[in-house]
Amino acid sequence: MKAGMEQSRLPIGIFDSGVGGLTVVHAVRDLLPNEELLYLGDTARVPYGTKSPASVQRYATHAADYLVGQGIKLLVVACNTASALALDELRQRLAPVPVIGVVQPGAAAAVNRSSSQRHLVLATESTTSQLAYTRAILQLDPDAVIEELPCSLFVALAEEGWNTGPIADAVAGQYLAGIRERSDVERPDVAILGCTHFPLLLGPIGNALGPGIEIVDSATTAASAVREELTASGLAAPEDANGGIRLIATDGAARFARIGSAFLGCEFAADDIELTDIHPADTGQT
Amino acid sequence: MKAGMEQSRLPIGIFDSGVGGLTVVHAVRDLLPNEELLYLGDTARVPYGTKSPASVQRYATHAADYLVGQGIKLLVVACNTASALALDELRQRLAPVPVIGVVQPGAAAAVNRSSSQRHLVLATESTTSQLAYTRAILQLDPDAVIEELPCSLFVALAEEGWNTGPIADAVAGQYLAGIRERSDVERPDVAILGCTHFPLLLGPIGNALGPGIEIVDSATTAASAVREELTASGLAAPEDANGGIRLIATDGAARFARIGSAFLGCEFAADDIELTDIHPADTGQT
Repeated sequence: MKAGMEQSRLPIGIFDSGVGGLTVVHAVRDLLPNEELLYLGDTARVPYGTKSPASVQRYATHAADYLVGQGIKLLVVACNTASALALDELRQRLAPVPVIGVVQPGAAAAVNRSSSQRHLVLATESTTSQLAYTRAILQLDPDAVIEELPCSLFVALAEEGWNTGPIADAVAGQYLAGIRERSDVERPDVAILGCTHFPLLLGPIGNALGPGIEIVDSATTAASAVREELTASGLAAPEDANGGIRLIATDGAARFARIGSAFLGCEFAADDIELTDIHPADTGQT
Repeated sequence: MKAGMEQSRLPIGIFDSGVGGLTVVHAVRDLLPNEELLYLGDTARVPYGTKSPASVQRYATHAADYLVGQGIKLLVVACNTASALALDELRQRLAPVPVIGVVQPGAAAAVNRSSSQRHLVLATESTTSQLAYTRAILQLDPDAVIEELPCSLFVALAEEGWNTGPIADAVAGQYLAGIRERSDVERPDVAILGCTHFPLLLGPIGNALGPGIEIVDSATTAASAVREELTASGLAAPEDANGGIRLIATDGAARFARIGSAFLGCEFAADDIELTDIHPADTGQT
């Protein structure tokens, strides 16, 4: 057996600050069912979005080092904050292991699908304030017009499991009424879901946006980028591989399992989660 | 001037993991307008509720030490998680400086006001899972029947500023419909707001509970406990004192000011907040 073939059987590592990145795991599993996936949710330090850039970079480095130590063939940074603040650093650190974030693939898909060059980015306040999607879209289309709209309540709705129904519709309607009421010329024709939680609210968001706005889900586009990278580098799992998912969290297995099952799209229990401590200095256990 | 008189002019220190404790500052200021208040929001490590007990105790110790270092005559732990997990430790550490949490005064007020001995506690999931209010109520009334109900979405609504209107009413209605629909015998007659964010949603919560359930706000009851302690220990500010508020945060002054003004009940700007670093080892700035 060649080294390359052994390497192709290694898992894909995916990390996020919490449970949200399980929507990326969900999308990768749907697209690449015979890949092994190793997920790390850094639930002891969630959310990253309110932390300083230096802290986010340090957390992301620890998470990446942990996954590399487990043996992975590719790393997906399934956290918008870490994708915005730590991707270049992680790429240098992990080379030649490829590193894929969620921002750039989402931006590229939006540019491809937009005719009007008017983009809407829906994300948490910390992500919209970083303007990472705006920068990524402008690199691909300098004439694009981008609006980033914080919709923080979607996170709480997704974690509460209130993904459909009158409350989800009312919240989406409240955030997006201003977009829907615009004239055709001023309205975006593409909306990026720039938060890993938001795919759970696809129905209410789509209803509130109304027709004529295509939704780009950055979890799905990240999964497509993973497939392209594995194909290009010859690292795709062989067809006889069974695939599977291993879940690791840094705190709160019970809550992770209860909330995360909806994100992953299949039930799992607290017993299915390995608890680990990847940054001893930050948890009082030094 | 006696030492006691000098000490009475020192500020009251109040700390919380974020902006929520500003509702306690609000309540203390309303009750004791000539006291100096020194508030510390540990926004770099918010939320405490999802952290391990060891981390919460360490964070609370750092926050308390910082405020004691500034010179305070009394400490209020305006964080339900830290009140539940770190109060005894802080009392030993700070003695003879008195330390008041938010859980015990709220529990005592509920026991005083309940006739039916049936209590409802509304809080975040992390607080309800600790059962701190249940333990505090049972110490005062071993025959009480207590139900703790997690209402996590109230936090997001309060931080978004959606404190009234159809969405707040719908969310409160969804959480509390089961309480309202009970028979009189089974319904609690007192509801404790066991999260510092929830006083902002007093209207929707009251409407959803319906008549016959008295709401006990643990911010207001903590303020009453502060007054009692200052009177008992002779530490109340002299009548000629002007009172005032000094605000300190550990991260994100802009967001703190924007969200916090509603909690404090008066406008303040990011420039009014001092940023400090109370736990260098946890912020990547070592």
